[in-house]
Amino acid sequence: MTAPYELIYYTGVPGRGEHVRLLLEEAGAAYKDTQFLSFDEARESVTHWLGAGGHGNPRYFAPPLFKHGDLVISQTPNILLYLGSKLGLAGAQADDVYRVNALALTALDGVSNEVHDSHHPIAVMLPYEEQKEESRRRSQYWIQNRLPSHLEYWQKVLESDKDSPGPWLLGGTFTYADLVLFQCLDGTFYAFPKAMEQARESGKYDRVFQLWEDVKARPNIAAYLASDRRQKYQDWGIYRHYPDNDIVSE
Amino acid sequence: MTAPYELIYYTGVPGRGEHVRLLLEEAGAAYKDTQFLSFDEARESVTHWLGAGGHGNPRYFAPPLFKHGDLVISQTPNILLYLGSKLGLAGAQADDVYRVNALALTALDGVSNEVHDSHHPIAVMLPYEEQKEESRRRSQYWIQNRLPSHLEYWQKVLESDKDSPGPWLLGGTFTYADLVLFQCLDGTFYAFPKAMEQARESGKYDRVFQLWEDVKARPNIAAYLASDRRQKYQDWGIYRHYPDNDIVSE
Repeated sequence: MTAPYELIYYTGVPGRGEHVRLLLEEAGAAYKDTQFLSFDEARESVTHWLGAGGHGNPRYFAPPLFKHGDLVISQTPNILLYLGSKLGLAGAQADDVYRVNALALTALDGVSNEVHDSHHPIAVMLPYEEQKEESRRRSQYWIQNRLPSHLEYWQKVLESDKDSPGPWLLGGTFTYADLVLFQCLDGTFYAFPKAMEQARESGKYDRVFQLWEDVKARPNIAAYLASDRRQKYQDWGIYRHYPDNDIVSE
Repeated sequence: MTAPYELIYYTGVPGRGEHVRLLLEEAGAAYKDTQFLSFDEARESVTHWLGAGGHGNPRYFAPPLFKHGDLVISQTPNILLYLGSKLGLAGAQADDVYRVNALALTALDGVSNEVHDSHHPIAVMLPYEEQKEESRRRSQYWIQNRLPSHLEYWQKVLESDKDSPGPWLLGGTFTYADLVLFQCLDGTFYAFPKAMEQARESGKYDRVFQLWEDVKARPNIAAYLASDRRQKYQDWGIYRHYPDNDIVSE
């Protein structure tokens, strides 16, 4: 298919669409991106394509959306799965696509959705200010219990690739799961800088923080991060920095 | 591959593994299931296979796990994706697998994970009793805002299949997304029976509740639900019935 790749998402923060951009940027693929529209135009595009249907596509619930010719799909991990295979970022062995998808889903659950829910534990439609106490309580448990649990898990994945040594989650083979984990760590660092710095300085998760640096240094990713296509985190996205929530343990 | 299908999960509640069982049961496929082990043996099997690695498999974070020969994978939607294609439940048109995966992920996010988080809004490691107030507050918002939003979305998907009329999410083509939505509705009915009954009686979501009935009536599913392989919901699973949280609007 020679149709263009089109990312349809809100504009103004990296958000969940950022994972899609990182795959396309790493592969050097051309793509259209509604981030270059005005805020209202991007929102209208999202609303239109959520409900467009036709060509066998169902209606979708939420962006990001991805359009490739007549195909329209939703759900971040699903878009990554589609693109991962097309862009050669879904592994080298038979069935690696299912290993990479498992790792990507685990990063998105644990180091993206859980972090988002830390500032909105009661309801997504309520402003943060109306769930501030619950948010602080949740963040404290998250930083003390879940953050170490996730970092320890990723460290073990990186340490246990004896069959195929290398800096990546599948050993020597760079895949889109590495890009997803990079973005999740990067966003979590924005949300909880003190807690993440303390984790880095502990020395217990060196392989994880090294992966973050290694992805950042890949030529296409470095160029992208330095460009104006990389939007800044802001406190209405997935990752928000509320100093009250950035709790460092003793 | 002629290796057996093996589901590796805790025993005692349907849980996330239930989605995997429903695909296998619908297709009449033989499978091994750790639910028939003792509680401790099932837990040991989960722990073993999470960390087993080897054969190109990474370490995984959480069950359910699925084993097919040397391949071991995790993450419910990923296991469904793998099995959906093998069992002929991932659609009929090119790229339907990505449409079905998007719908399955949306059901799991909205009508499984969100419902789970209603009884654990602060931390998964804290007992419900220590987050009871927050749980009630979250459940109230969820039932008043998110439940109608999700039911309205699924109703619209079912109503908008003009290209291919039929009772299913992809119109005339039954897919595993229908099984996932069935299980999500069924679990939510256990958790919030009054709220769900009120939604059913409103008449606004008739197609959604009809899908629930239609899946339940499929011969292999009906036989499975009547068998002792179908475990009962209990108040330590994804779906828990706490009467305080089952709030009916005026």
